[in-house]
Amino acid sequence: MIVPPGGRVGVLGGGQLGRMLAGAGARMGLDVVIFTDEAESPASRVAAHTIVAPFEDEAALEAFAARVDVVTFEFENVPAAALTALERLGKPVRPGSGCLERAQDRLVEKRFFQELGLATAPFAAVDSLADLEAALAAIGAPAILKTRRFGYDGKGQARIGAIDDARAAFDAIRGAPAILEGFVAFEREVSIVAARGAEGGFAAYPLCENVHENGILRRTASPAQAAPATAQAAIEAARALSQALDYVGVFAIEFFVTAEGGLLANEWAPRVHNSGHWTAEAAAIGQFEQHLRAVCGWPLGDGSAAPAVMENLIGAEAEAWAALARDPTVRLTLYGKREARSGRKMGHWTRLGASDAEDG
Amino acid sequence: MIVPPGGRVGVLGGGQLGRMLAGAGARMGLDVVIFTDEAESPASRVAAHTIVAPFEDEAALEAFAARVDVVTFEFENVPAAALTALERLGKPVRPGSGCLERAQDRLVEKRFFQELGLATAPFAAVDSLADLEAALAAIGAPAILKTRRFGYDGKGQARIGAIDDARAAFDAIRGAPAILEGFVAFEREVSIVAARGAEGGFAAYPLCENVHENGILRRTASPAQAAPATAQAAIEAARALSQALDYVGVFAIEFFVTAEGGLLANEWAPRVHNSGHWTAEAAAIGQFEQHLRAVCGWPLGDGSAAPAVMENLIGAEAEAWAALARDPTVRLTLYGKREARSGRKMGHWTRLGASDAEDG
Repeated sequence: MIVPPGGRVGVLGGGQLGRMLAGAGARMGLDVVIFTDEAESPASRVAAHTIVAPFEDEAALEAFAARVDVVTFEFENVPAAALTALERLGKPVRPGSGCLERAQDRLVEKRFFQELGLATAPFAAVDSLADLEAALAAIGAPAILKTRRFGYDGKGQARIGAIDDARAAFDAIRGAPAILEGFVAFEREVSIVAARGAEGGFAAYPLCENVHENGILRRTASPAQAAPATAQAAIEAARALSQALDYVGVFAIEFFVTAEGGLLANEWAPRVHNSGHWTAEAAAIGQFEQHLRAVCGWPLGDGSAAPAVMENLIGAEAEAWAALARDPTVRLTLYGKREARSGRKMGHWTRLGASDAEDG
Repeated sequence: MIVPPGGRVGVLGGGQLGRMLAGAGARMGLDVVIFTDEAESPASRVAAHTIVAPFEDEAALEAFAARVDVVTFEFENVPAAALTALERLGKPVRPGSGCLERAQDRLVEKRFFQELGLATAPFAAVDSLADLEAALAAIGAPAILKTRRFGYDGKGQARIGAIDDARAAFDAIRGAPAILEGFVAFEREVSIVAARGAEGGFAAYPLCENVHENGILRRTASPAQAAPATAQAAIEAARALSQALDYVGVFAIEFFVTAEGGLLANEWAPRVHNSGHWTAEAAAIGQFEQHLRAVCGWPLGDGSAAPAVMENLIGAEAEAWAALARDPTVRLTLYGKREARSGRKMGHWTRLGASDAEDG
């Protein structure tokens, strides 16, 4: 099914990713319809229409389905039941609910990586304090306890420095179903942002390199400092993952790179990704347009891109907007969020060209 | 007055220029509010809010003023009275009503060019058939009779091949107040797209070259094939015009270039301009963001830009969207118009790099 210009794309979620998707859709002559549970969302202010309702509201989902030709989503904590409800209504959902389910649960995600033959850090399921103690005995400390679901930007995580910290960590995540992950020695964090089209076409952007601070992405540089074989392995992992799921749309896989250049798959996201924001300036077709192209059955861009650096503006950092706007080497994107809460992503800037010394 | 991110920009007019302004505003973290007399406008589907009312509706203009921090417009046929009404309400209007008035009337426009010391084709005011006959006797045929107001894309014009055609031409424009313009021998048509900031800063994009067909812009290439002195003269004309009007925002001046490299000022537009669409891809800060930067008191981009070609998609030409989307050398922009009427601008494409032989 092709959604031509003039068509209507429904996006579940109203955050900055939805806003940037809506911006790309505007350029493609598409109408973007947002479904969000937030009254004043960044995406709704750029969209043709917005439905504000809980994701569990079936009547609202029906009204949404009636207004759109295809459905996608901009964050992975949308209840999979909302997607299956839309699928039952006969609406194409891209990527489908099966894809979302493999990304929402950290244990399912890690097992999926294993099925694909991708190495991961050691991990174990934790449903009780006894599980945690056994997992710690096997994996060792330091380790990190993460809730299986609904974590993002470092939320729902507890570091375990020593085996004695088990109970405190278990309490910190309130005993939610969890996964213990061993710490691995890594040289760098990288991610691959790629797209698979409705007809099975595939295109990856160059492997990029990420720096996190306090569990939040601080900075991405592309291309990553990595051996060609490492970059190629990441691309092949993305291809395999997307084929295994009959995936349609943009997605990202985050990896650790070991001292030997090996890749350990850490997370994947069935959506446009913060570590791909630089593609909007550095590639002919950036990730937001690429995602809509895939979802609407348009030809994919080829993913080739100029070197670039992207840095997030978190909380009060966005107050520096005027200085950033004055810097001719920087392209500034702001998300229109009303409140600059601590730890909240307010915008980002991109600089084309190789990462330089000043940027560290 | 500075409108910071999170601020609200009102745009009078809901066409594709408003849509592309709204797209730029989205990226700047601004809310764009559209005031339009069209029920389903391209811009409204990308805006935070839309007011649909006639431009003469004072209550609607008041409601609009209450919702925005600054007002601008996207087409020059907005009644100047709407701008003065908003100004009386104390709302900053950028550019102001005085600027609009100098662009809405072809006779005022031509006399303004003369005041600025800019050469023009020969012209004369025509209010009656007798005026027209006298003007034709002075200027000679061929010539072109244009209504003073509300013309665009070749509308409101009648060619006069010989002096005997006077009555037919006068009837064709229904005896509206008009201007007779002599034909001039020119080598090419060029335009300069420039911006003046709220603090008086000025930045021009490279002089570009235009090809019109049936009175509608077909194609723009940048930079124009022109001597450096010619390009510089166009930039100085733009600077002088914007200073004379205390202009704030992006504007364009169209010129004919004579065989000797001289410039004849033809029209100017107090808004973002079709011949500047390529700047969205070829400059760090394209004309849409540049206009909002000027209007909101942000620092201006410097106007430097890579070579580029832009071509309009008119009427049914937009049906070729899939082939254009597949071409990796092309960036496609579509306007989301519901109906592809003949002569209607439906979208455009831009190609970076110097104009090549294939492109003619």
